[in-house]
Amino acid sequence: MACSSRADKMNLVIQKIRSFPDFPSKGILFRDVCPILKDPKALTAVIDLFEEHVRQTYTQVDLIVGIDARGFLFGPLLAQRLGIGLALIRKKGKLPGPTVSVAYSLEYGKAEAEMQVDAVEPGQKVLLIDDLLATGGTLYAACELLRKRQAEVLGCLVLVQLTDLDGAQRLKPVSVFSLTEY
Amino acid sequence: MACSSRADKMNLVIQKIRSFPDFPSKGILFRDVCPILKDPKALTAVIDLFEEHVRQTYTQVDLIVGIDARGFLFGPLLAQRLGIGLALIRKKGKLPGPTVSVAYSLEYGKAEAEMQVDAVEPGQKVLLIDDLLATGGTLYAACELLRKRQAEVLGCLVLVQLTDLDGAQRLKPVSVFSLTEY
Repeated sequence: MACSSRADKMNLVIQKIRSFPDFPSKGILFRDVCPILKDPKALTAVIDLFEEHVRQTYTQVDLIVGIDARGFLFGPLLAQRLGIGLALIRKKGKLPGPTVSVAYSLEYGKAEAEMQVDAVEPGQKVLLIDDLLATGGTLYAACELLRKRQAEVLGCLVLVQLTDLDGAQRLKPVSVFSLTEY
Repeated sequence: MACSSRADKMNLVIQKIRSFPDFPSKGILFRDVCPILKDPKALTAVIDLFEEHVRQTYTQVDLIVGIDARGFLFGPLLAQRLGIGLALIRKKGKLPGPTVSVAYSLEYGKAEAEMQVDAVEPGQKVLLIDDLLATGGTLYAACELLRKRQAEVLGCLVLVQLTDLDGAQRLKPVSVFSLTEY
């Protein structure tokens, strides 16, 4: 049975996101996208919805940038749908060769984001992808990294946006597209 | 220009794997698959080659299992091609809810692999995917985790196999399919 309308796809995706209280630490309600991965139709629906948004919103996108590690699950699928390449942003120390990095604070702790220098060309129009937008710390650092390499950040795509944490505000003027909000 | 034959695809993929000496530590020659991701045709070729192998080798596959983090880049693409679901195996502490875990030693250090209890159903026939097979420590732990959940591990798929490190020997009787060997 095909799942064809935009609303059907959205419902299928939202149904598959589950919540775990106090993970990874006390007071955090963790939104888990693993059931989406387990259901091939739900995963197809995610990529359909992202693709539709991208094609309707941007005349040109040159590169998808996936954020370590859950952005890696969705980035390659979207990049292949759009027929474009993928770059990675990882925690520091994971990528070989010449890199650029940016330090930032997380909801719980500190981290450093890193990208290979040749992952993106100056002037490329890029879209960032991750599973979730919380405080926006990681995506903000990712935008900084891309600007260091003279890329143009068109926007961020996430499955889930936690609106209470004001991540979208922090990322402005970069826009955020999310499939669902809590 | 379409890249059609198996040999053409293999050449395209192999051309895009580059090597960095002494990363992440002295004496390790790191094989970097990032240039494959940057080129959408090369990434399509990887998935074409994996899909062809799977369809020719197995009559039934129920689930792809991606290994954190670079297995996440290829697992969802292959699972979508085959129309089946994806489960994740991650470093301990990253997955919410009831999990199973296995400790193991790495080429450089120690680690613990973890999987959600409901990621796989007993009796499911699964294929593991990662970017690289070195000593096989991570993939061996992953096989252990899947056996704990009564899944049947059909084989492991990797882009790169480092034959000197005897990982395939360690994983026996589970078979390894690699696109290239060094």
